[in-house]
Amino acid sequence: MPRGPEAVRKWEEITYWPLIIASLLWLIAYSWKSITDAQGELAVVLWTIIGLTYVVFVVDYVVRLFLAKPRGVWFRGHLLDLAIVAIPMLRALRLLRAITSMTFGRHSAGTVLRSRIAIYGAGASLLVIYLCALAVLDVERGAPGANIENFGDAIWWAFVTVATVGYGDYYPVTALGRIWAVGLMAGGIAIVGTVTATVSSYVIEKAAAGRDDDEPATRGQVRGLAQEMTELSGYLKAAKSGEGTDAK
Amino acid sequence: MPRGPEAVRKWEEITYWPLIIASLLWLIAYSWKSITDAQGELAVVLWTIIGLTYVVFVVDYVVRLFLAKPRGVWFRGHLLDLAIVAIPMLRALRLLRAITSMTFGRHSAGTVLRSRIAIYGAGASLLVIYLCALAVLDVERGAPGANIENFGDAIWWAFVTVATVGYGDYYPVTALGRIWAVGLMAGGIAIVGTVTATVSSYVIEKAAAGRDDDEPATRGQVRGLAQEMTELSGYLKAAKSGEGTDAK
Amino acid sequence: MPRGPEAVRKWEEITYWPLIIASLLWLIAYSWKSITDAQGELAVVLWTIIGLTYVVFVVDYVVRLFLAKPRGVWFRGHLLDLAIVAIPMLRALRLLRAITSMTFGRHSAGTVLRSRIAIYGAGASLLVIYLCALAVLDVERGAPGANIENFGDAIWWAFVTVATVGYGDYYPVTALGRIWAVGLMAGGIAIVGTVTATVSSYVIEKAAAGRDDDEPATRGQVRGLAQEMTELSGYLKAAKSGEGTDAK
Amino acid sequence: MPRGPEAVRKWEEITYWPLIIASLLWLIAYSWKSITDAQGELAVVLWTIIGLTYVVFVVDYVVRLFLAKPRGVWFRGHLLDLAIVAIPMLRALRLLRAITSMTFGRHSAGTVLRSRIAIYGAGASLLVIYLCALAVLDVERGAPGANIENFGDAIWWAFVTVATVGYGDYYPVTALGRIWAVGLMAGGIAIVGTVTATVSSYVIEKAAAGRDDDEPATRGQVRGLAQEMTELSGYLKAAKSGEGTDAK
Repeated sequence: MPRGPEAVRKWEEITYWPLIIASLLWLIAYSWKSITDAQGELAVVLWTIIGLTYVVFVVDYVVRLFLAKPRGVWFRGHLLDLAIVAIPMLRALRLLRAITSMTFGRHSAGTVLRSRIAIYGAGASLLVIYLCALAVLDVERGAPGANIENFGDAIWWAFVTVATVGYGDYYPVTALGRIWAVGLMAGGIAIVGTVTATVSSYVIEKAAAGRDDDEPATRGQVRGLAQEMTELSGYLKAAKSGEGTDAK
Repeated sequence: MPRGPEAVRKWEEITYWPLIIASLLWLIAYSWKSITDAQGELAVVLWTIIGLTYVVFVVDYVVRLFLAKPRGVWFRGHLLDLAIVAIPMLRALRLLRAITSMTFGRHSAGTVLRSRIAIYGAGASLLVIYLCALAVLDVERGAPGANIENFGDAIWWAFVTVATVGYGDYYPVTALGRIWAVGLMAGGIAIVGTVTATVSSYVIEKAAAGRDDDEPATRGQVRGLAQEMTELSGYLKAAKSGEGTDAK
Repeated sequence: MPRGPEAVRKWEEITYWPLIIASLLWLIAYSWKSITDAQGELAVVLWTIIGLTYVVFVVDYVVRLFLAKPRGVWFRGHLLDLAIVAIPMLRALRLLRAITSMTFGRHSAGTVLRSRIAIYGAGASLLVIYLCALAVLDVERGAPGANIENFGDAIWWAFVTVATVGYGDYYPVTALGRIWAVGLMAGGIAIVGTVTATVSSYVIEKAAAGRDDDEPATRGQVRGLAQEMTELSGYLKAAKSGEGTDAK
Repeated sequence: MPRGPEAVRKWEEITYWPLIIASLLWLIAYSWKSITDAQGELAVVLWTIIGLTYVVFVVDYVVRLFLAKPRGVWFRGHLLDLAIVAIPMLRALRLLRAITSMTFGRHSAGTVLRSRIAIYGAGASLLVIYLCALAVLDVERGAPGANIENFGDAIWWAFVTVATVGYGDYYPVTALGRIWAVGLMAGGIAIVGTVTATVSSYVIEKAAAGRDDDEPATRGQVRGLAQEMTELSGYLKAAKSGEGTDAK
């Protein structure tokens, strides 16, 4: 069997849609199980789906690691993929990748980037909030002294946390629940940072507009100037040598 | 009846003031009803005003949709208008539009933009806080286990939430109240982001001032240089051809 | 008595130190009264000092308004001074003005600006937190249901609020206390915004360093280029006219 | 014994590893004591290690102060070192200094800077959170009315505080605990500011990419132009003088 970047690329092409479907199956089964606190036969079915999709993800990773040529290099360059295998939550974020290939018509690079950040950021934020709410609900439900007992309260808690408001009407009490909560808080800081950065980029760009003469000279302008100079230089040298010829 | 962009523009010109008055009427009636928890005949009057202004907004939207020439294009380009019809809260924000046409004398583009953002932002923030307080009060008052029971507590809760402080002395307990609260939190993040972006733009602009020689070359400068070069080029070519004439 | 900008300037020169001393007296008396909840004779003395310094501030404002030549213009341009007279808290911020005239040796404009923002910002933040803690303690102490009852708790509450943490162990319950709290939250957002803006300015400046050839061309560079071109142009024209003279 | 900058440098070279080992010993002993609330003989051993490392730090500072030539200048320029001696917590941050010498291959200056900020920032944040949790646990444990009684709750409280969420399930009640908490909140604001600044720098850089002609002209470009002009100028002058020679 051939190995190397080409083989990996081909494998990724073949598994693109199956993996997306496996991700969706995982998301649905995990949500169902967590939200309804499914018991009995249904729980067995859902756990089976979750387990099978997990096997798919592990197999995919192992195959890619096997196909890669300098395996050490590939491994070091794909630590994120290892994290995604270990924490299936992260995989759902992959579903958002399609957004990054969206086109936004003929707009400035800044506008396209900001639109992309806004759409991807909003999607990722909602998905992270939803998944953290599920994960926390999963570990808190039934724990002694816990106050997050149903999905409605869990999603409300997640929004209150990610916005760094923190009323304190709900909060995790188990160690695992708190670890997820810390991850969600980090996500909240990242969201605030990204919103601010995007608005900043817009304000700074706009603040510079409308006073064209005072804006930084563009590369295009200097290139135009350089071309004009080259032409003049060429003209003068040609005229000179022409003169020289006349003189003979 | 003629249709097309021209007809829409004319309709918007005619309905400009009536719609502002309808917005104000809606705002007053809704505030009155929510703050006083009006009952009996007064409630009937207030609900009638709210209902009538709502009809006005729907009619305005339908007429504009009817007048637009490629209706699909207009519809896709005016999804915000549809949202404003559905959630009358948003319409009140239209009242702030007048601010954007304010003039700020002879200042740099950055200063004008920042002043506009500051004034519009402050106005929009206060209006959003006020309207969310009303909406939450409306749905929470009388709900079992609710702690937001009068307007004073509602507006205090709204400020505590929008600043992402979240003491937890007041918080919504109904599903609808929590949805409004999440909207308010998003508004809070937007406010923090906008304040930061505006201050950033100012600091970055100021940090570059006072060291003119080290600042980016301006387009005006390069244009001046290009003109000088064109003149020299023209002069040399004219001199050359003059020489050529002399030589004959 | 002469009136006009010159007279106002002279008055401000004369009253500079007396007003600073009055501000300090006010700050000490108000702090003493609020922190110790002074009663009896001491309270009379402290209230007298607070009252007298207040009279001084009002007289100063009235005299300046009287001395200004186009009074309407001066009034509109000094609304902040009116606010400072009305809310003596703001006057204490004037004490920080001396900082803005500090020098920072030979550093880049950005570094000086950022140092100034950091020092002034830290000073203003601490003063605002201190004054809001005093004001809230003043109105909350003794109110029914209040939980901010001594200065230690008040200053702790103020820090928790300004950092937008909001544990909810202490919070104001009176209308006036809540208004001060909202002001403090606004201050907190401003602090976060200013810290972020200052760090941003630093990061953006540093991110551009160390790759001189890729940095924006400076005005100094283009000026140098323009001068070289002017010289060449002058040389060529002089040579030409010299040639013309030779030819005669 | 020789004194001056050279002697100080030599001393710092010699003490580099011993000081790092002392810092680590201090960190381990302090953590052990605080987390386990060690009593009896173990406590004596741990306190001895803490005390000895402290002596090492004081001796190091005194020796450096002694070796420095203009002692006043060195003292004013090393106030941070004095703070580090007084608050051993800060010393642990020195352990992170090694990060700043990490290399990041061939990337743009902005990318290297942002990677460094991200790694150092994450390390410093985790260390500050850990140390503040220890310090607060140390002073709160056993205090009347305290609710932070074990390390798990202390570290959870520290994360909730630094993210400015502040549920209010745990909070310090002693004066010293609150002072540490205020420091942690300041750290939280600094983290939010740094995250935002780093994202901003990235967004602003990317927003400018992909439209090369519209980007600010670079210094390299203008240097190229200036060189071309100098060549032309030299050529013309040489040609002129050549002409002059011909004419003779």
